[in-house]
Amino acid sequence: MESLYRKLKEYGEGDTYPFHMPGHKRNMGGYGFEDPFSFDITEIDGFDNLHHAQGILREAQQRAARLYGARETFFLVNGSTAGILSAVSGCTSQGGKLLMARNCHKAVYHAAALKELDTVYLYPEKEPEYGLNGGITPGQVEQALREDAGIEAVIITSPTYDGVVSDVRGIARAAHRFHVPLIVDEAHGAHFRFHPCFPVSAVDCGADVVIQSVHKTLPSLTQTALLHLCGSFSDGERIRRYLSVYQTSSPSYVLMASIDRCMELLEEDIEASGGKAPGSLFQTFFRHLQEFREEMQALKHLQLVGEEITGQAGIYALDPSKLVISGKRAGIPGLEIQSYVREKHRMELEMAAGSYALGISTVMDTREGFERLFQALKALDEVLGRSGHAAAGGPGKAGGLFENGGKKTEGECMLQYPEKVCRISEAETSELEELPLAMAAGRICGEYIYLYPPGIPLVTPGERLTGEMIRGLTAYVKSGYTLEGMRDLSGRRLLVMKD
Amino acid sequence: MESLYRKLKEYGEGDTYPFHMPGHKRNMGGYGFEDPFSFDITEIDGFDNLHHAQGILREAQQRAARLYGARETFFLVNGSTAGILSAVSGCTSQGGKLLMARNCHKAVYHAAALKELDTVYLYPEKEPEYGLNGGITPGQVEQALREDAGIEAVIITSPTYDGVVSDVRGIARAAHRFHVPLIVDEAHGAHFRFHPCFPVSAVDCGADVVIQSVHKTLPSLTQTALLHLCGSFSDGERIRRYLSVYQTSSPSYVLMASIDRCMELLEEDIEASGGKAPGSLFQTFFRHLQEFREEMQALKHLQLVGEEITGQAGIYALDPSKLVISGKRAGIPGLEIQSYVREKHRMELEMAAGSYALGISTVMDTREGFERLFQALKALDEVLGRSGHAAAGGPGKAGGLFENGGKKTEGECMLQYPEKVCRISEAETSELEELPLAMAAGRICGEYIYLYPPGIPLVTPGERLTGEMIRGLTAYVKSGYTLEGMRDLSGRRLLVMKD
Repeated sequence: MESLYRKLKEYGEGDTYPFHMPGHKRNMGGYGFEDPFSFDITEIDGFDNLHHAQGILREAQQRAARLYGARETFFLVNGSTAGILSAVSGCTSQGGKLLMARNCHKAVYHAAALKELDTVYLYPEKEPEYGLNGGITPGQVEQALREDAGIEAVIITSPTYDGVVSDVRGIARAAHRFHVPLIVDEAHGAHFRFHPCFPVSAVDCGADVVIQSVHKTLPSLTQTALLHLCGSFSDGERIRRYLSVYQTSSPSYVLMASIDRCMELLEEDIEASGGKAPGSLFQTFFRHLQEFREEMQALKHLQLVGEEITGQAGIYALDPSKLVISGKRAGIPGLEIQSYVREKHRMELEMAAGSYALGISTVMDTREGFERLFQALKALDEVLGRSGHAAAGGPGKAGGLFENGGKKTEGECMLQYPEKVCRISEAETSELEELPLAMAAGRICGEYIYLYPPGIPLVTPGERLTGEMIRGLTAYVKSGYTLEGMRDLSGRRLLVMKD
Repeated sequence: MESLYRKLKEYGEGDTYPFHMPGHKRNMGGYGFEDPFSFDITEIDGFDNLHHAQGILREAQQRAARLYGARETFFLVNGSTAGILSAVSGCTSQGGKLLMARNCHKAVYHAAALKELDTVYLYPEKEPEYGLNGGITPGQVEQALREDAGIEAVIITSPTYDGVVSDVRGIARAAHRFHVPLIVDEAHGAHFRFHPCFPVSAVDCGADVVIQSVHKTLPSLTQTALLHLCGSFSDGERIRRYLSVYQTSSPSYVLMASIDRCMELLEEDIEASGGKAPGSLFQTFFRHLQEFREEMQALKHLQLVGEEITGQAGIYALDPSKLVISGKRAGIPGLEIQSYVREKHRMELEMAAGSYALGISTVMDTREGFERLFQALKALDEVLGRSGHAAAGGPGKAGGLFENGGKKTEGECMLQYPEKVCRISEAETSELEELPLAMAAGRICGEYIYLYPPGIPLVTPGERLTGEMIRGLTAYVKSGYTLEGMRDLSGRRLLVMKD
């Protein structure tokens, strides 16, 4: 059989351009590494110990803390997942209560299940123009905390996968008024602090614990992340202890060196421009983004979502490095945009959802990369113009281009989050039975259902499935999406609680 | 500041020879990788998803399962830690009961705490000749299961860090007689199946779940491991679900490619020798081991522990690839052996404990490496002869060479494991206070205390500290060991339960 390594090398040597994670874009130039086997060691004399850092790893973590303005920073080698599990576990008691945004990453649900938490949800509003999840508002948090004195911690995702930012400062104030810590999953915001064109990082907005993926939007190897302790409402020592629980006792020096290398690059970039951000790397990146955004205004059918979106409850800033390409005006689903760009122009986007596709851009993207993406989207825009938004028989995963042209796209079936009936841990440990998806309406779900990416559960254990939800899930499968989290990998059968 | 990468590179380019993990020994030759940034991707089209493997990763895992004779095998990117957490979580209920060897890795205790388990301990006997932990016997397991019908699963470590193997076949039979699954932490045994000179792998001895580190004794990057499902007494589906909980949702393709590359190398080695182990790599390794072991017999003071050790309860096989160098006869502590070899001969051993030092050897070690180690130990042996076991003023971490010469070495204070008073989770969540170590005798411990390596708790939360234990811990600190797991990184103050 062909080895994974050879297949990865072949792919890396091909000319498919990555508008997706990891943020290093396979374009590290002089910042790359040699053969990882040549410097992959263990905790020998002089090389410290991540779980008891007192030497070189402590210094490296302190540099990261300085760069981000955190009180203390921890390197994570098990991704933001480890940071989220540790932060939630460290801020709650067994069987306690967690206030969380319903559009959090599955790791938050997993943490809640491990600690048998009762979860109280903050539902983000659906922004009407592009069908994106909006932010969470301080008012929502304030109200939830006022209604339930048992809540021990608040966690939200900001920015979202799409780049939508909440008013973290207002939310932190609301949480602290009730003496409750705010954890922010800022997995997609590790670059915020390095150019004023980006939203302000949660670290600077009063959050107590902030988790950032280094590999998502900065140049570092996949699976690397940071956990920052900032505010004073969390027990840092408990969180540190959980980091040693959820992370291997043999952390990879290759991954740690990658985080440190990235911090060094950020630091040098700032130093070279007189000690103040933005450094030249980020200045160049900003210029690329500006040019791309200007060019995109010429398109007639596809739309690049701007730097803020407007919902009923508020206006939410959008990270400009997130390229949200909406097919809504043209009636073309996100999956079709993604396939067109992949198959006709050899560019890979990060994700497709209902009516949009998402590209992730970073400092490692080139001028040529942005230009190629613009040319690809311009070509698609012209096809859309010629076809008058009618079927064009493209190569999409979901069948011909525009077969849903003009109609509601699948994602929109999912407007309603299901009703929570019991704790996740209760549903998971109750007696379950497996049913065909079509027969599950009205039943309480016994497992997670999510799309990956982004890994936000559409349904969690303990939520009641409605007929509308089942139709939505079925539509997803029909459109070529893969439902994950279920025991049945085909996504056709579902575990539900026995009546 | 000097970057971690540069420091690692410098070290890698130096001529210090590694008789420690990772098993690739920075000696991969044609099997190495290029710059990891050049092939580090994410779950794009065609590259499958570890948490929902249906393509290339599924095939890669199936190859590993074939090689090991397992029913199903999972790649782990968060080390054996993730495998242990998942196996224990998947085989027990919240608040349930676990039968475990007291010399298990801290990950087992962490798993027990997460699930609030009541832990029943199997204490390995201390083998008298070298002061090693012996194995666990089937009789011990049988008796514990007979006495307590509430036990839901059994977990042991075999081989131990030192290479000591238990009678897994007998233990599996005992567990299955009580319809309880046996989990084996075989982190140090991933190489067993590839040469008949090694003990038989737990996979072939009837264990239900077996966890192996790939990086410890085989050529793979640090942090890579395997979980094998073998027997029928465990719920594989539950374990799989926990793997998705304890492992990042962004698993590193570099780490996964490293596991796959290692499996490919093992498979090719077997194929080249007509489809039957041992392949020529392992034949050569075996020859090196034989030669080294023969040479070592000429030493007069240091002893290389043989291929079995004898305790009161049984004879336990030792993995011959583990080089346990005992200073007991010469009255020289393990730390002194380790420092001598490091500072006079630029070789790094894996670990030092009471009266021995431990070298880890693998297929990637060279003839020259073994010869260098022999020459180093021979030189030390001669020094020992000349000095008549008296102080020689060496460069050791613990002060001059042989300052404890002839006396009892520190490790031996630790013969007695402390008495368990309550569950780990109970102690961890109770009110704690910090005391100087010297004042903690008689109190119930509120945190872990361990040496790393090997990461086996000397004391766990919920165990009562004795005066002897405190004296032992203090002796460790004095001898230059670092106590880990405690909030106070200096190891001088300890959290205990409030009276």
